[in-house]
Amino acid sequence: MKTLTVALGERSYPIYIGDNLLVEADLLTRHIQSKQVLIVTNETIAPLYLEPVLQNLSAYQVESVILPDGEQFKTLDSVNVIFDQLLAYKFSRNATLIALGGGVIGDMGGFAAACYQRGIAFIQIPTTLLAQVDSSVGGKTGVNHPLGKNMIGAFYQPKSVIIDVDVLATLDNRQFSAGLAEVIKYGLIRDLEFFVWLEENIDALLARDKTALTFAIEYSCRMKAEVVAEDEHEGGVRATLNLGHTFGHAIETGMGYGTYLHGEAVAIGTCLAADLSHRKGLLTAEDVARIVALFERANLPVKSPAELSAERFVELMAVDKKNVDGAIRVILLDSIGKATLPMNIDNVSLIQTLQTYGR
Amino acid sequence: MKTLTVALGERSYPIYIGDNLLVEADLLTRHIQSKQVLIVTNETIAPLYLEPVLQNLSAYQVESVILPDGEQFKTLDSVNVIFDQLLAYKFSRNATLIALGGGVIGDMGGFAAACYQRGIAFIQIPTTLLAQVDSSVGGKTGVNHPLGKNMIGAFYQPKSVIIDVDVLATLDNRQFSAGLAEVIKYGLIRDLEFFVWLEENIDALLARDKTALTFAIEYSCRMKAEVVAEDEHEGGVRATLNLGHTFGHAIETGMGYGTYLHGEAVAIGTCLAADLSHRKGLLTAEDVARIVALFERANLPVKSPAELSAERFVELMAVDKKNVDGAIRVILLDSIGKATLPMNIDNVSLIQTLQTYGR
Repeated sequence: MKTLTVALGERSYPIYIGDNLLVEADLLTRHIQSKQVLIVTNETIAPLYLEPVLQNLSAYQVESVILPDGEQFKTLDSVNVIFDQLLAYKFSRNATLIALGGGVIGDMGGFAAACYQRGIAFIQIPTTLLAQVDSSVGGKTGVNHPLGKNMIGAFYQPKSVIIDVDVLATLDNRQFSAGLAEVIKYGLIRDLEFFVWLEENIDALLARDKTALTFAIEYSCRMKAEVVAEDEHEGGVRATLNLGHTFGHAIETGMGYGTYLHGEAVAIGTCLAADLSHRKGLLTAEDVARIVALFERANLPVKSPAELSAERFVELMAVDKKNVDGAIRVILLDSIGKATLPMNIDNVSLIQTLQTYGR
Repeated sequence: MKTLTVALGERSYPIYIGDNLLVEADLLTRHIQSKQVLIVTNETIAPLYLEPVLQNLSAYQVESVILPDGEQFKTLDSVNVIFDQLLAYKFSRNATLIALGGGVIGDMGGFAAACYQRGIAFIQIPTTLLAQVDSSVGGKTGVNHPLGKNMIGAFYQPKSVIIDVDVLATLDNRQFSAGLAEVIKYGLIRDLEFFVWLEENIDALLARDKTALTFAIEYSCRMKAEVVAEDEHEGGVRATLNLGHTFGHAIETGMGYGTYLHGEAVAIGTCLAADLSHRKGLLTAEDVARIVALFERANLPVKSPAELSAERFVELMAVDKKNVDGAIRVILLDSIGKATLPMNIDNVSLIQTLQTYGR
């Protein structure tokens, strides 16, 4: 087992990465605050992994909330179901919430923990590749609004993150590839060497080779932990983690939450950002092609949905947390391995990319 | 004009107290972050004070949300109405939310600001005595749940608090007295001298004598600011501000939100806490009578609602943020001017107080 630390002073916490960690009772219980524990999970994960987690907690008062699976259920209403249960069981401010699932469960569980009695402890047990390499680390929690992705939420850090690599064995191929989109992102924004490693090892990853997979997860978590420690509330460098996300969120909102998986939308969005970077004279055409090729090899979509016009796309992008006073801002690439900070984008170049790339 | 400071390091902020501050444009605009401003208010306050505030903001993109008035509307649904407006107007993360109203508006506006895009700036303009002396200062924000008062929320500090003493001229007598309950509380928990001053000046306050009123507001805000600076997240001394609140919240939840005003429920709750303090050997019978007498002179209720049985009361008190692992904890009084920290309460004494006092 490897242990990484997200260094945030008093709010620092460990990320445990290894085989078969789900059955390590001590790993789980060391960060639980009192006898009261609520597990939040979904209908897909509960039949697979709820029982092993419960077995670690026989000495506790454990209750569970099982939500429907999918981005379309990442809503205030779902979070309210969690509140209902916490109150129905009279859970105190020293209770602990465990989020057992993918990014949707982690984001909602974390947000519920942030708001219940103005904040209770929570633990992330991510069960998808995307959640393991990205969303479970760094304390971004929240829900979607019909008009914008992740628009309601809180910065709220977990007490620990437990990443059991073995759970990826049951992950379907589409979800697995969606997770690879965020792994590739780390290479693009800050590490050419890692990007090259991914080009060389993408087939091993797709074959779920455990050595390759563990290396990729650990390396990704290390980069995420570094960025978050440097800039917890996204005043600067943390924004680079949003490469492709402004476009991606527009696709998710515009096509209806759940139509594209988050990682799929980010893959398309990153290709659009690469095209726009080239258009602004930052990235060579060869590098754009190289980026698109790696996403394709990872079985990810790289073209905009035909249903979304360039105009509708721009309208959707106008609602984004990076925007300032209404101006659209996106992360671009200076080169493979180096992202820009958020840049104001003129509508002409943006429309050109949206009308041309992959259409 | 007086300026107090809530000393919280980087999150420190001023409280301005004075006459006619609502029309001081500079006071308002100095803490606004960008052109985008959302005013959250209610149907009672909007016709009285929305226009003067808008006149200060003619250079800004200002939008308003006018919610129905009353504790029964302090819900996640109302907060969602605020989110809808922020998104409909495409407000960015550097937008500013102004909460113009009483405690309900301040708590909801603050919570919406805490959660929108994981946090935007907000300014409190409290228009009731209760909000001016208590709820607008200290960063407690949130909403009620059918099973418990203030159970969903965040600690989130405003950029400034603007207290215009003149707005109290339009406050109805019942609301005014409700505010006095929290003023009396400060004397009870930490300042015998202030309690004596209140005994001597209660008639002047009820006559809305501006000198007496300004003194009482400033003194109350100073005490609140001191306690919050010492213990922002209620790990210790801040809990004493909840004297009477565990009982009071049970009354509010049990009778239906809005039946009793918050300050009225706190007045009854404080009398119950005083009775229980006497029963536990902490407070003399004379002091209990003296406390009850001052609430009565302030035209506040001092007896439990006949509809709430002692058993139902205990059940409602079991849901409280001070409770640990399910045990009921309340603040008691050692003497007038000195509160205890939260104490575990045995059911026997509690039931005796609930069955006997004021029945």
